[in-house]
Amino acid sequence: MANKLHITVVGSAALDTIETQSDHADNALGGSALYLAAAASLFAPVHIVAVVGDDFDMDQIEFLKERGCDLSGLEVAPGKTFRWHGRYHADMNIRDTVTVELGVFEGFSPKLPRAAAHAEILMLANIHPDLQEGVLEQMKGKRFVAFDTMNHWISGTRSGVESILKKVDLVLLNDEELALLVGGNSIFEGAAKLMKMGPKYVVVKKGEHGSVFFSQKGVPFLCPAFPLANPKDPTGAGDSFAGGMLGYLAATGDFDPMNMRRAVVYGGVVASFTVEEFSMRRLETLTEEEVHERYRQFIEMTEF
Amino acid sequence: MANKLHITVVGSAALDTIETQSDHADNALGGSALYLAAAASLFAPVHIVAVVGDDFDMDQIEFLKERGCDLSGLEVAPGKTFRWHGRYHADMNIRDTVTVELGVFEGFSPKLPRAAAHAEILMLANIHPDLQEGVLEQMKGKRFVAFDTMNHWISGTRSGVESILKKVDLVLLNDEELALLVGGNSIFEGAAKLMKMGPKYVVVKKGEHGSVFFSQKGVPFLCPAFPLANPKDPTGAGDSFAGGMLGYLAATGDFDPMNMRRAVVYGGVVASFTVEEFSMRRLETLTEEEVHERYRQFIEMTEF
Repeated sequence: MANKLHITVVGSAALDTIETQSDHADNALGGSALYLAAAASLFAPVHIVAVVGDDFDMDQIEFLKERGCDLSGLEVAPGKTFRWHGRYHADMNIRDTVTVELGVFEGFSPKLPRAAAHAEILMLANIHPDLQEGVLEQMKGKRFVAFDTMNHWISGTRSGVESILKKVDLVLLNDEELALLVGGNSIFEGAAKLMKMGPKYVVVKKGEHGSVFFSQKGVPFLCPAFPLANPKDPTGAGDSFAGGMLGYLAATGDFDPMNMRRAVVYGGVVASFTVEEFSMRRLETLTEEEVHERYRQFIEMTEF
Repeated sequence: MANKLHITVVGSAALDTIETQSDHADNALGGSALYLAAAASLFAPVHIVAVVGDDFDMDQIEFLKERGCDLSGLEVAPGKTFRWHGRYHADMNIRDTVTVELGVFEGFSPKLPRAAAHAEILMLANIHPDLQEGVLEQMKGKRFVAFDTMNHWISGTRSGVESILKKVDLVLLNDEELALLVGGNSIFEGAAKLMKMGPKYVVVKKGEHGSVFFSQKGVPFLCPAFPLANPKDPTGAGDSFAGGMLGYLAATGDFDPMNMRRAVVYGGVVASFTVEEFSMRRLETLTEEEVHERYRQFIEMTEF
């Protein structure tokens, strides 16, 4: 195997309060950049670019350092760490946001250390599209850019989102975001429209129903979700999916369509571990070998 | 390939009035037995056991005769054919029943002609469990029994349903019926409970999200749905799925778990054609070669 590629993730670091119908977690580790890093660092070197407040306990992310994550781009700013409080319905596909306190995240202006700027793979997690543009400008010699956003930016800063779309390779989003962004009678129609706006690849995430990977060339890849008897907390599943997918791409350095499909499967497998426990507790202890083992189980479950 | 096995289907024959948000069909061919036969007869010989009224125009099912279906078990009784009128929401997973007129179906008492009684495969479609018991008693030398039911029978005649479950090999149902029948936090927990009640195999149908095939031995098979840009009418999709699956099993005569998985894929492929047009119009013109072609496309869409 060739040397592993490096991944830079730019997004949020947060402290989450999460309620489900049966349990809860308070001030637990969260945020897109941290979920992404926890997932991707199972496979490859990750540079984290995010901001926390001076109330943030760095011991909480010691496991990321141990996995080789570069934390030099994790800014500590005076003030409070971004906090999110969410509550899930019995149908865990639905959640309400109880409170959001942006804290230092409100003034976040990503500055990439030299090593982060030289990573071959960039993950632009869900932040303001203008900040995403700024990050793109700081990158040097990038090879592959993945992009995530949310309804808030699609509705409020559509032109910014459309501008970014011209510059990225892969978009990851759910069916609701896709419908808001491009309309369409189905995700198949929607993904085709989206790829005309720039991106070569689109992943539509459907939660417990799996995902579909679209490429400008060739037919879509239909990927079921790994089945779980008792999912506990879906928070961070989407970011873990992206992290697992990019981590596998970085580890293999192979952007061939068939290898990208395998990366999609790895994304789903990593996400399946995430939802087994609250917050990113399962990701903290997860090993690459456990991921490969579940990947092999997935092969058995989809062979015909 | 060995001689094809024969399939007997016992269920309803109906005239359906179907409304979607954009179109409708009046007095169109419907009913579980006819959908099953239309799908299964693409692959293997089918014996139909059902009842119609003297208002039923036999020319409508000339295509079934041309495909070699044995109609000698299709009773014509004095009175009106079973009529169902349904209306789909914008989300076509949800439908309201506007009216039901049982007509001659109310007095249906399946009598199997000799050829039907000797079929190796029996499909007990959605009818009263006591009638299903009566059919089982008439069968001679059957090898494989598949079973479908509905919420109405699960709620109203649970003991009858439970008694039948001990005598069948395969149950096909949707996630809602599974939850009503056995409870459980997930379809994976539910299917395990259901297999303890008798059946060796369970297929949980999830509509546009595909299906999962469970076997008492081995891991589940996760099967996505074939994607459609513009589905028109989901009526009969479940029966077409069952028909396609059993048709393929009959044609191959192979009940090995891996071949049963391929049969599940064929079921989904046939169902995908059904929903492309109202009623069973697409099934009427469908050819085995078209089904095989889409099966090959499905392989391409799921390979990794």
